[in-house]
Amino acid sequence: MHTVYQEPLVGRYTNPEMQYLFSDEMKFTTWRRCWLALAEAQYELGLTGLINRDMLDEMKANLTNIDYGLAREKEKEIRHDVMAHVFEFGTKCPKAEAIIHLGATSQFVVCNTDLIIQRHALHLIRAGLLNVIDQLAAFCERYKDLPTLGYTHYQPAQPTTVGKRNTLYLLDLLTDFNSIEAFLERFRARGAKGTVGTQATFLELFQGDHEKVRRLDQLVAEKLGFVGSYPVTGQTYSRKHDIKLVEILAGIAATAHKFAVDLRLLSNLKVQEEPFASNQTGSSAMAYKRNPMRSERMTGLARKLMGLPADFYSTYANQWFERTLDDSAIRRMDIPQAFLLTDAILKLFINITSNMVVYTKQIEKHIASELPFMVTEKILMEAVNRGCSRQLMHEVIKEHSVAAGLMVKQEARDNDLLLRLADDPRIPLNGSELTAMTGDYRQFTGRACRQTEEFLEEYVHPILEKNKESIGTVDASLRV
Amino acid sequence: MHTVYQEPLVGRYTNPEMQYLFSDEMKFTTWRRCWLALAEAQYELGLTGLINRDMLDEMKANLTNIDYGLAREKEKEIRHDVMAHVFEFGTKCPKAEAIIHLGATSQFVVCNTDLIIQRHALHLIRAGLLNVIDQLAAFCERYKDLPTLGYTHYQPAQPTTVGKRNTLYLLDLLTDFNSIEAFLERFRARGAKGTVGTQATFLELFQGDHEKVRRLDQLVAEKLGFVGSYPVTGQTYSRKHDIKLVEILAGIAATAHKFAVDLRLLSNLKVQEEPFASNQTGSSAMAYKRNPMRSERMTGLARKLMGLPADFYSTYANQWFERTLDDSAIRRMDIPQAFLLTDAILKLFINITSNMVVYTKQIEKHIASELPFMVTEKILMEAVNRGCSRQLMHEVIKEHSVAAGLMVKQEARDNDLLLRLADDPRIPLNGSELTAMTGDYRQFTGRACRQTEEFLEEYVHPILEKNKESIGTVDASLRV
Amino acid sequence: MHTVYQEPLVGRYTNPEMQYLFSDEMKFTTWRRCWLALAEAQYELGLTGLINRDMLDEMKANLTNIDYGLAREKEKEIRHDVMAHVFEFGTKCPKAEAIIHLGATSQFVVCNTDLIIQRHALHLIRAGLLNVIDQLAAFCERYKDLPTLGYTHYQPAQPTTVGKRNTLYLLDLLTDFNSIEAFLERFRARGAKGTVGTQATFLELFQGDHEKVRRLDQLVAEKLGFVGSYPVTGQTYSRKHDIKLVEILAGIAATAHKFAVDLRLLSNLKVQEEPFASNQTGSSAMAYKRNPMRSERMTGLARKLMGLPADFYSTYANQWFERTLDDSAIRRMDIPQAFLLTDAILKLFINITSNMVVYTKQIEKHIASELPFMVTEKILMEAVNRGCSRQLMHEVIKEHSVAAGLMVKQEARDNDLLLRLADDPRIPLNGSELTAMTGDYRQFTGRACRQTEEFLEEYVHPILEKNKESIGTVDASLRV
Amino acid sequence: MHTVYQEPLVGRYTNPEMQYLFSDEMKFTTWRRCWLALAEAQYELGLTGLINRDMLDEMKANLTNIDYGLAREKEKEIRHDVMAHVFEFGTKCPKAEAIIHLGATSQFVVCNTDLIIQRHALHLIRAGLLNVIDQLAAFCERYKDLPTLGYTHYQPAQPTTVGKRNTLYLLDLLTDFNSIEAFLERFRARGAKGTVGTQATFLELFQGDHEKVRRLDQLVAEKLGFVGSYPVTGQTYSRKHDIKLVEILAGIAATAHKFAVDLRLLSNLKVQEEPFASNQTGSSAMAYKRNPMRSERMTGLARKLMGLPADFYSTYANQWFERTLDDSAIRRMDIPQAFLLTDAILKLFINITSNMVVYTKQIEKHIASELPFMVTEKILMEAVNRGCSRQLMHEVIKEHSVAAGLMVKQEARDNDLLLRLADDPRIPLNGSELTAMTGDYRQFTGRACRQTEEFLEEYVHPILEKNKESIGTVDASLRV
Repeated sequence: MHTVYQEPLVGRYTNPEMQYLFSDEMKFTTWRRCWLALAEAQYELGLTGLINRDMLDEMKANLTNIDYGLAREKEKEIRHDVMAHVFEFGTKCPKAEAIIHLGATSQFVVCNTDLIIQRHALHLIRAGLLNVIDQLAAFCERYKDLPTLGYTHYQPAQPTTVGKRNTLYLLDLLTDFNSIEAFLERFRARGAKGTVGTQATFLELFQGDHEKVRRLDQLVAEKLGFVGSYPVTGQTYSRKHDIKLVEILAGIAATAHKFAVDLRLLSNLKVQEEPFASNQTGSSAMAYKRNPMRSERMTGLARKLMGLPADFYSTYANQWFERTLDDSAIRRMDIPQAFLLTDAILKLFINITSNMVVYTKQIEKHIASELPFMVTEKILMEAVNRGCSRQLMHEVIKEHSVAAGLMVKQEARDNDLLLRLADDPRIPLNGSELTAMTGDYRQFTGRACRQTEEFLEEYVHPILEKNKESIGTVDASLRV
Repeated sequence: MHTVYQEPLVGRYTNPEMQYLFSDEMKFTTWRRCWLALAEAQYELGLTGLINRDMLDEMKANLTNIDYGLAREKEKEIRHDVMAHVFEFGTKCPKAEAIIHLGATSQFVVCNTDLIIQRHALHLIRAGLLNVIDQLAAFCERYKDLPTLGYTHYQPAQPTTVGKRNTLYLLDLLTDFNSIEAFLERFRARGAKGTVGTQATFLELFQGDHEKVRRLDQLVAEKLGFVGSYPVTGQTYSRKHDIKLVEILAGIAATAHKFAVDLRLLSNLKVQEEPFASNQTGSSAMAYKRNPMRSERMTGLARKLMGLPADFYSTYANQWFERTLDDSAIRRMDIPQAFLLTDAILKLFINITSNMVVYTKQIEKHIASELPFMVTEKILMEAVNRGCSRQLMHEVIKEHSVAAGLMVKQEARDNDLLLRLADDPRIPLNGSELTAMTGDYRQFTGRACRQTEEFLEEYVHPILEKNKESIGTVDASLRV
Repeated sequence: MHTVYQEPLVGRYTNPEMQYLFSDEMKFTTWRRCWLALAEAQYELGLTGLINRDMLDEMKANLTNIDYGLAREKEKEIRHDVMAHVFEFGTKCPKAEAIIHLGATSQFVVCNTDLIIQRHALHLIRAGLLNVIDQLAAFCERYKDLPTLGYTHYQPAQPTTVGKRNTLYLLDLLTDFNSIEAFLERFRARGAKGTVGTQATFLELFQGDHEKVRRLDQLVAEKLGFVGSYPVTGQTYSRKHDIKLVEILAGIAATAHKFAVDLRLLSNLKVQEEPFASNQTGSSAMAYKRNPMRSERMTGLARKLMGLPADFYSTYANQWFERTLDDSAIRRMDIPQAFLLTDAILKLFINITSNMVVYTKQIEKHIASELPFMVTEKILMEAVNRGCSRQLMHEVIKEHSVAAGLMVKQEARDNDLLLRLADDPRIPLNGSELTAMTGDYRQFTGRACRQTEEFLEEYVHPILEKNKESIGTVDASLRV
Repeated sequence: MHTVYQEPLVGRYTNPEMQYLFSDEMKFTTWRRCWLALAEAQYELGLTGLINRDMLDEMKANLTNIDYGLAREKEKEIRHDVMAHVFEFGTKCPKAEAIIHLGATSQFVVCNTDLIIQRHALHLIRAGLLNVIDQLAAFCERYKDLPTLGYTHYQPAQPTTVGKRNTLYLLDLLTDFNSIEAFLERFRARGAKGTVGTQATFLELFQGDHEKVRRLDQLVAEKLGFVGSYPVTGQTYSRKHDIKLVEILAGIAATAHKFAVDLRLLSNLKVQEEPFASNQTGSSAMAYKRNPMRSERMTGLARKLMGLPADFYSTYANQWFERTLDDSAIRRMDIPQAFLLTDAILKLFINITSNMVVYTKQIEKHIASELPFMVTEKILMEAVNRGCSRQLMHEVIKEHSVAAGLMVKQEARDNDLLLRLADDPRIPLNGSELTAMTGDYRQFTGRACRQTEEFLEEYVHPILEKNKESIGTVDASLRV
């Protein structure tokens, strides 16, 4: 183990629930469930001459009873993993042996199992996402009226509120959530379709009865927990499905990336931080440093995940006819990677949003240094009210603003714009009048607080309400 | 013009309707529509002290009356395109001059206009897609029961039908179509949100009346043809929207790519071809060559389009706080490129599917050479019926199949499997019995024809029926 | 013009020299140069029965004498651009008409011209790069000993110098420069290779004389300014060449991106800025804002360019056999885009580095707030020297450091670590001793200054020295 | 193990040598080698007061003596992997304990170890590549004069030879090889640079002696097997290095992809195939099928690898200042993945090229069906020689060519062009004259054979000669 590469997604970053979904056990027991579903459906649709209840009972009793060693031996011999497991399952089900995989092609178990795993994994992701949304919504609520500098070009602009800023991430998370919901709604099985999708063998089995074969396809899908199956397929379900799937996951990565980068900037500004981990130290030499390491990790993981859709576009777009196998190795790596990365990202996202630190005094300090600029429009209006020329006032204020801004940079002293204006005889307001104007800077945040309230109430809470049972279900503790 | 690079998407590949959507005229007249919508909404919501009907009429009368030279002059002077056009519009509207852009920030016109253009462009794409679907559906219907070799690993497998194969592309096109529909349904304006999204200036204009500002946002959106506006924004609408947009277009590219590659392979197989262009020649030296040049072009254009989502992921994920300007140049290039590429691809797709050529005799020849392999399972069953050992028959047939397959390659002679079987005394069927079995190879296509019928009826026709008016509206003639 | 999409790379961002290289004129005159080179080489190698001096003179005299209208007419008729220009050239060269393009295939002119244009374009890029390097080297020299905070995790770490930090970009620029040099050294023509690369027609022309055909290939290459031609090709030169080409350009983009992002962060820190453009204003409402708009634009352009190599990988990897045409449309767009983007980026890069502003006082302020932390190691050592336990001192200092760091954030007051230490009786140094230790913070910058000097002298200056003539040759003024 | 995701690159596709390079053992023993090199260099440069021979001997004796459990325990406690291993190493080296990692920062061991592993891995890749080149060169030599159809647009064009076609892959493989060589030549250590790259701590250790610190940097690099170290770094070596590294590997993937796709097409054409694996069967139902599964797998693996450079561009371009940690998780995954993918690809590439099957008779059949078209130019010339009008002959031949080409497709009969020409009284050649012209179709392959010989001799053999010892060293047997 120390002499072989260990995949860090498993070793370091993800939850066992997700790791299990891409394990051998999950795969091979699900294959058996597919075989059982097929046999049951065939039986129910009238193949009672071939299949009987005893066989079905036998299969059901052995769904998780797998001799991995035997299967591996057989696979080495015949170089065919599905047939090796048909054989191994058969050794456990002597009665059913002959009808396991009846009329099916390998992709019957492979594709349907892939889709079942994806569905499970999407539900884990969905729950993770809801927990992030829940925590971030609470954060928005808590800080909905705490003014903070807005930034455009990463230069101070008008103020917004801490809560309002975080609704921007929330909106994007809702988009991600809705994508999952819509995708799950469209989610279909590959069903019972045959080698090139024509259901030829099944049609033979049912002696040309088209309707029964159609119902077989549907029935198998339902038994495996799907609403139905894709109406047409080649040998596999269309790899276009995989593109959509991974785009959803990459969408979550993108949201997480934007959030994490902002948090890393806020951390530099000393305005907002990841929660403290009690035993966390900065570098050994600089114990006081609170490096935003979880956000940095989230950034990197998200970057990798955002790189994966390209693989899936290319794989789908280069599938030839009913199927080529150049999809196999890459899907075998990329689908688990995509889900494990999402799992790792959401674990971090929940961890971070569980207890973010906000430094109110630092926020005030930042605002204070920009406040004089913000108040200039009010000064302008008041001066015009008092009879000054708008054109002139605009020029005068602009001149002093530019000078004050430059002075701050060149002299590293505090913003003295109001003093400059007070000293300028052209401006009809004195120092205390000017200072008074900066009094309640909440006024500059417009509807930020109200927007936050409205947004939470109308968009976020209904979803959280509907999904209460998912909240608090995800382990967000970190190993490293 | 001969001394400067000319963008080939405009010069060679696309329709004028799409080119217009990304023109200066479209942009600047839409800016004016945004200003008018804002002024109207402000007026209707009670800012009658500032705004009157005359102003609105004046603005309405000058929506398309633009002096581009003047605007450019002004922009050079003040280095601000929006303000230059505010000025230029003002020269046309002396009464309204003071209230144009009242309380707005640049992104009010820029973002809303972007979204309006996207919406128009999506409708063009939607129509193009419907026309492809319509033609391909007719092709499926026409060839629904023409058997053809299915391929897995690009090696002959069981037969399918020409129509059934093409339902695979159709299903993917429907996925693309549904993505557009779902996206258009969620489509929202950026609305009237202010510099950092807090609506601060509007709140001041309406003297703290939150409800009115909320209605302003909604009213403007409606006047611009939207259902509503995004509930929260920074300075711009979330760039996550752009990801979704471009993924839809790239999805169309992916479908087109798969289709085009298959057609290029079919062209080599002499089975199916692009329609003949009467004056098209192959290379000058090889006039007989029917190079699948449109499919090849479609492949290349699609490849480029599939490369664009990565840009949008990265742009969104790296936006800092309420907005950074690193989205500007790249969106200015990538959004038009994405739409123009889609336009070019659909133009080709419509052109190609309008009259594809199918070579029935070649198809038969291909099937004939594989038919002996296909019939082996039937032979096996019949032999078993006649009392032979299944195990032995399987071995015998396998042995001859492999030998016959190898002989075809090594000797380049016709498949002689049936002769080999007839000559083998272990096989209890004679030559004419064996040949008889290959009689109607339609039997090997299973439900391909029926699936095609069902799929067209249940999935495709309802959509075409609902969108009849879009069919036949797209110019698919090619310039080069 | 106002009703059609205008490519912004041409309209807004690039220099005319680069725009010209991808113009029709450049392309079609270079085709003629290729035809002339071929005819000359054929003549020199003995095809004097077919070709004579008069013909060559006639061709030479008409290299730039192109009737574009006529060529376009002809192309419409025969749908073949190369043959249309053979025809058009022939109308200007009645004597040479029959031997223009003798034995050649379209890709003879197309590929060789592509390569000639790339070579020219690379030389423009090379010059641009040298100018950035030159300016950045001067900046490093100037600020080599100005201490500034180093950052890891975007949290203050040990100090470095402004000059030293900028050597990091310089090193990466040198890597880019060396990639160009190495690529130009390996640069070969496609030469005279024939339809599928076998030179069959040329071998016939030279009646089976292999050696002459080999020399033809070489001679044509030399006449077109190459060292030689690729030893083997299909119909075109290997598209792997294009990957390497675009990777070099994307490499420049990556360096520019890192630089630009750092500068945008520095701009927020008020530490360093883009040069002031005299007539530049911030937003209309906030005239004092110095938005780092050029760096932001550079970021976006670089992002797009970094996205292009994927297209070229995919194009090369999916070329089938001797050539498929799915490379055509995408190369027609992507190669000009890649060069124009690089041109735009370098134009900005030169503009920005021409006169960057450094705010020394702000830098000092930043350092001052971190200085107490930096001096802790010295305090520790001194305390140990005075007989204290290292273990205890480490704990004490860590305790106060963490508290001071937290206080700064929570209280937004100045770092009081030294006061805390002075007040702690366990620490054997008093306040003035502690303060004295922070005296010359240059001591904390280690070899930053010296590294800068050594690096400039050993790595940068030799290259600049060798390429003096390229310095100052690039127009870096911006249009918008 | 059955309940957790297993990375398939390790489980299925790669060699143990490469897996080991990315193992814990390789990493942690190399860390120790770095610490030893540092201590030795410090000792040799005069820190004999701190360091003595005994310490060095102790360290040397314990390079591979690692208690992983203890290290993991410690890491859990202090959350710092490097410091945990400093501690664990210290328990084995009680004398050296205090001077392990003296003056170093974590990245001293981390970066240098990364580079050492990369260097080893590149040498494995280099050997793999040479073995592919060797085998493919032998294949080219063997089939240098076997004519085969060339394809453009995947439509038959002039013939080339099997050997010549394969030189195209060889040329691209040489490009890959030369990229490795050039990169290894530029390869440098990160050296001894300190927290932000200023070597501040080392300068203190050496009491301000710049020259000694410089030599320390160089000496450490040499002891670790490098020519020297990068002249300047931030906390880490520039991540631009990683881009170059992965581009080289992705370049190999691209070549492998082109090769594999061509082979999959050839396999359909029954012209060329992967070597037979004796126990390989097609699908269970179709034992005769020889699915090109290795080429398909190679295609998929290559696609994934070609997707990785984008991650590295983005990681480098978004590193802030001296270093941010968003490079950590992604490099931890992507660098091993890139190398393991390359290893898997080369393993397949060697396996496939070891014994490719060529079906000469099928090749002849393909040529025969196109031969009539190829001979038309000769017919034209002969007819002109016999006094016919070139213009007329061109028209007549074109007319019949197009008709014959169409007939082949429509009727699925053999090409009857020569019969058509013989029957046309305008053509002055009779049937046997026409047939005679197709006699030796080797004539149409031009210089294909000679080019192959020249290319092998001048470009390929010198490299193989120089690297004889690498040939035959790579295990290319496949597990699954």
